[in-house]
Amino acid sequence: MEETGKTTRDEIAAQTGALIAGVRDARPLVQMITNYVSMDIAANVLLAAGAAPAMVFAPEESPEFVRRASALVVNTGTLSAPGAQAMEVATTAARTHGVPWVLDPVGAGATKFRDDTICKLLRHRPAVIRGNASEIMAVARLAGLTQEAGAPRGVDSAHETSQVEGLAQKLARHGLCTVAATGDVDIVTDGRRLVRLANGSPLMTKVTALGCGLTGYVGAFVGLGVDPFTATVSALAAYAVAGDIAAEQAKGPASFRTAFIDALYTIDASDVAARLRVG
Amino acid sequence: MEETGKTTRDEIAAQTGALIAGVRDARPLVQMITNYVSMDIAANVLLAAGAAPAMVFAPEESPEFVRRASALVVNTGTLSAPGAQAMEVATTAARTHGVPWVLDPVGAGATKFRDDTICKLLRHRPAVIRGNASEIMAVARLAGLTQEAGAPRGVDSAHETSQVEGLAQKLARHGLCTVAATGDVDIVTDGRRLVRLANGSPLMTKVTALGCGLTGYVGAFVGLGVDPFTATVSALAAYAVAGDIAAEQAKGPASFRTAFIDALYTIDASDVAARLRVG
Amino acid sequence: MEETGKTTRDEIAAQTGALIAGVRDARPLVQMITNYVSMDIAANVLLAAGAAPAMVFAPEESPEFVRRASALVVNTGTLSAPGAQAMEVATTAARTHGVPWVLDPVGAGATKFRDDTICKLLRHRPAVIRGNASEIMAVARLAGLTQEAGAPRGVDSAHETSQVEGLAQKLARHGLCTVAATGDVDIVTDGRRLVRLANGSPLMTKVTALGCGLTGYVGAFVGLGVDPFTATVSALAAYAVAGDIAAEQAKGPASFRTAFIDALYTIDASDVAARLRVG
Repeated sequence: MEETGKTTRDEIAAQTGALIAGVRDARPLVQMITNYVSMDIAANVLLAAGAAPAMVFAPEESPEFVRRASALVVNTGTLSAPGAQAMEVATTAARTHGVPWVLDPVGAGATKFRDDTICKLLRHRPAVIRGNASEIMAVARLAGLTQEAGAPRGVDSAHETSQVEGLAQKLARHGLCTVAATGDVDIVTDGRRLVRLANGSPLMTKVTALGCGLTGYVGAFVGLGVDPFTATVSALAAYAVAGDIAAEQAKGPASFRTAFIDALYTIDASDVAARLRVG
Repeated sequence: MEETGKTTRDEIAAQTGALIAGVRDARPLVQMITNYVSMDIAANVLLAAGAAPAMVFAPEESPEFVRRASALVVNTGTLSAPGAQAMEVATTAARTHGVPWVLDPVGAGATKFRDDTICKLLRHRPAVIRGNASEIMAVARLAGLTQEAGAPRGVDSAHETSQVEGLAQKLARHGLCTVAATGDVDIVTDGRRLVRLANGSPLMTKVTALGCGLTGYVGAFVGLGVDPFTATVSALAAYAVAGDIAAEQAKGPASFRTAFIDALYTIDASDVAARLRVG
Repeated sequence: MEETGKTTRDEIAAQTGALIAGVRDARPLVQMITNYVSMDIAANVLLAAGAAPAMVFAPEESPEFVRRASALVVNTGTLSAPGAQAMEVATTAARTHGVPWVLDPVGAGATKFRDDTICKLLRHRPAVIRGNASEIMAVARLAGLTQEAGAPRGVDSAHETSQVEGLAQKLARHGLCTVAATGDVDIVTDGRRLVRLANGSPLMTKVTALGCGLTGYVGAFVGLGVDPFTATVSALAAYAVAGDIAAEQAKGPASFRTAFIDALYTIDASDVAARLRVG
């Protein structure tokens, strides 16, 4: 189990600063099939970052639409049978057209219906899987890599990310993808490399769907066409640094949310260089 | 028709302060089947309060999910046929598993479809019904307790809560539940006791879905396992006091919304003790 | 191709001030069938303006509901087959009952499914069509008025409004309706008159669904019963002036959003008189 190795903090900071600017320049079109709770904030996260979000899910049009997208993001929150069908159609089309896609397995492990849906989605080979520790554990179980149940409480994590480092690496190797588990410390791995990121604020857990917004943000970085591991590390780093900036101005979760979106709009390489904490 | 009786203002304030802390300690898991307009704000209200919201509605999973929930909240806004079916399945399961559930009969009286859906839901015995005065009147009519039509204008109330005190009490006795009608003055009754609460700000009517958020907040208090009447009185009291706090900082509805969610996050027993107004 | 002619800036400002007050007085009930991304902000825009929004779409109830509405607004974002059916039923009912309706053809030109849906809706004769330049171009193509494809990128415009002035006028004459294309400069035409409005902030494109919110706002003004061209000019003028006011206080898209909704709540004739810029 190799670790960060030569990837130093400063290299990550520089890469992150470059990709933040890259999103603003390229304006990647990110198609999202996301839950109803997150629609507003996920779109606003992407707009603040400089990307172009499009919430398009109907099976009648998403295969036609996804071809022009730079990335597709699929999120299993507020799941329904038509929603699961929409995800199946869109991820199939994304794979056909070589569009990278990112999976946010909200509620993995919570019900059989979630698990069945996520199992099917995994067959379409996401480039990145981003969840909390319990969700990553549950996905690893669905992939046959552990017997342990993720057992989230509702949609919240019952585990620390440090508990799933090994499983996340196994899952990444098994799926030939990047896996990110976020929490107090975020981890990102492609099965070989593993980075720990330690920025962010506890208030981020008090604003609904900020995790879903993060997965959309990962989609924007992946949509730049860089290696998904690098894209994911940079997206998580930038997002958490924006969380640090916002926390300094917040009186509670709602003023935090406002300051956070504003911070995603203004954040640049110098903010990351000054604040990034690698675990 | 008995009134507040021995329940003094100070007793309500003390109880409210204790339950605000109780929600933060217990982090009740509140499953919500709510309308699309309210998804974001209802989840944020619950998170700010310290509860764990989960917007889970699919009939494929909600019976499995609701067993672990501390309370279920059902809201008939943006109603659809699949939505009505989801509510039917979830409330049936809640009743089977002894999970208390709270009904927000948005738009009761507005169309036959709403009324038919609400009629069916009433059979599953909500622990609490929370609506505006016109909605409570309409529900009382659906229960055969009055001929008077609620006749709301859109989703707004055409009545004052003082006009429905008697009907709310009848409805509470008829349904063996707690009934709350909110407006300039909020009333809560279990058919025997009746409390009037007079905090809050007119700006609360200028932010969409704050009523839906309140019903979610009631769900969190009910999820603590205390008597639903006490839980509802305390939830309404805390919510309206947070409204008072927010109004002091607001320049309009959006800055009010931000300050309000922040206030729900910080409010404690001393705020309630200092500000509560019982009618 | 006649232009503004006698409609001077001061006349537009005076009319706008009067209609802003008119919405607050009349509280028009605006039924919206809008996309999931815009539900929250569109409802909050209408509430801040003093109107009464109602997000009602189920075919089981919308024909019954729309009869009491002052206007109906239909938006094709996050389109689905059930959604398209809901729009068909509601616009048919609106036409039957003489309720004016406003079309926001989100994503026109992006997929065949969008285009087919919008084609069907056009048969029910909207009073106003409000979109970005690419969407207006795409709708004109659907109406057989041009061969040029709108070709939006995702849901963003690939054109300036100055490029579609002629087409917008043709479309207005063809559909006997008012057409508004919004962008850096907004244009409004009824086929005979054409007004250019030059207020607003670039931050308006960084907040999701502000365009959808604008279409709802147009619905409130149309719901006053004045001529749709006049209503649309005034709604666009007031909205963009509120954007100017908000931009002066914003640090980014989220603080802009808050200030913008607050500005819609407080804006009056004197703000418009002082700030309106007619192109």
